[in-house]
Amino acid sequence: MYSAAVQDLIDELGRLPGIGPKSAQRIAFHLLRLSPEDALRLARTIAVVKERVSWCRRCFNIAEVPEGTNSAEEAPECEICRDPRRDPSVVCVVEEPRDVIAVEKTREYRGRYHVLQGAISPIDGIGPDKLRIRELLARLDPEGIKEVILCTNPNIEGDATALYLASLLKALPVKVTRIASGLPVGGDLEYADELTLGRALEGRRELGD
Amino acid sequence: MYSAAVQDLIDELGRLPGIGPKSAQRIAFHLLRLSPEDALRLARTIAVVKERVSWCRRCFNIAEVPEGTNSAEEAPECEICRDPRRDPSVVCVVEEPRDVIAVEKTREYRGRYHVLQGAISPIDGIGPDKLRIRELLARLDPEGIKEVILCTNPNIEGDATALYLASLLKALPVKVTRIASGLPVGGDLEYADELTLGRALEGRRELGD
Repeated sequence: MYSAAVQDLIDELGRLPGIGPKSAQRIAFHLLRLSPEDALRLARTIAVVKERVSWCRRCFNIAEVPEGTNSAEEAPECEICRDPRRDPSVVCVVEEPRDVIAVEKTREYRGRYHVLQGAISPIDGIGPDKLRIRELLARLDPEGIKEVILCTNPNIEGDATALYLASLLKALPVKVTRIASGLPVGGDLEYADELTLGRALEGRRELGD
Repeated sequence: MYSAAVQDLIDELGRLPGIGPKSAQRIAFHLLRLSPEDALRLARTIAVVKERVSWCRRCFNIAEVPEGTNSAEEAPECEICRDPRRDPSVVCVVEEPRDVIAVEKTREYRGRYHVLQGAISPIDGIGPDKLRIRELLARLDPEGIKEVILCTNPNIEGDATALYLASLLKALPVKVTRIASGLPVGGDLEYADELTLGRALEGRRELGD
């Protein structure tokens, strides 16, 4: 019913995650109303990201090709892998690049990362072969990695992924740890769900030394 | 925290209506994961829309510049205004291009449209001067318009806009009508809100001839 160009735009917007047909239509009309400069800025940022951003060849985090270098070269390294102050002997394994940001915000961690780009989820058809697990195993020996911190989400998929990785790594000369589950800081026993409280009890630690 | 290119993309996506920071991040990561062709198709549809689509110079509906013509020429006419089978003496006044689609879907209407591109809303700072009202008045005489159907939404803003237009048009030699408000077809008296039921009573019509 709309002109072909507008319908194409609505269709493309509707393919984005979390954008239904109504939202796609609303966004398309918003873009129609914007000045050409404002609307084309969005188009340009997409093009720039696809040209300059890819996955770190070491840890599969987001990595940007530095300005002035040829983006057609091999995959770049991310800022964290390039940072000589980071401890290369510890690797924190996370599901997604956003989890790297979450861990970085704690300012508690000075090692490197490995981004699996997902978690094992049989319902969604995601098996271990779809994740960057082979690439993790290939890093251990050449990089002299001594500890692998399994920092996948504390949910069914993340726990399954951590268990799977732990079983693979058991035979290898690395320390394997899993982040603690328990009550959030500032939380309230009364409002904690029983699974979380159960994990908190299970993971209890002795006070003092 | 993300690379500059990714952060720019998240920022641009976050400016779209209904897209919060979390959604913007999710869409940006989705675009990162897509093949370059798929991601750039979205960028290209935006560019095509901004190049080829503008407002109809007559009715301010969406109008696409036909392929093969120079898009830098004056604003095009929309498909409905170009259609010689439409009755030019009746104009249906709506708020937005999507309302044109809604009326077209009824297959009941064979006249032309006028898209106000909004409704009077003092709270949002939208006065009559922000709408395409002057352009509507300028069409009446040259196009020999005999009836103006006020088809703005039956809500506070749409009713205020219709009342304002009716007061402007009163002095002119055109018939002015307003679409009926009442119970939706298939609706239920019991579940109708009192405003709608009140309007339905007010707009009652005699049966038979």
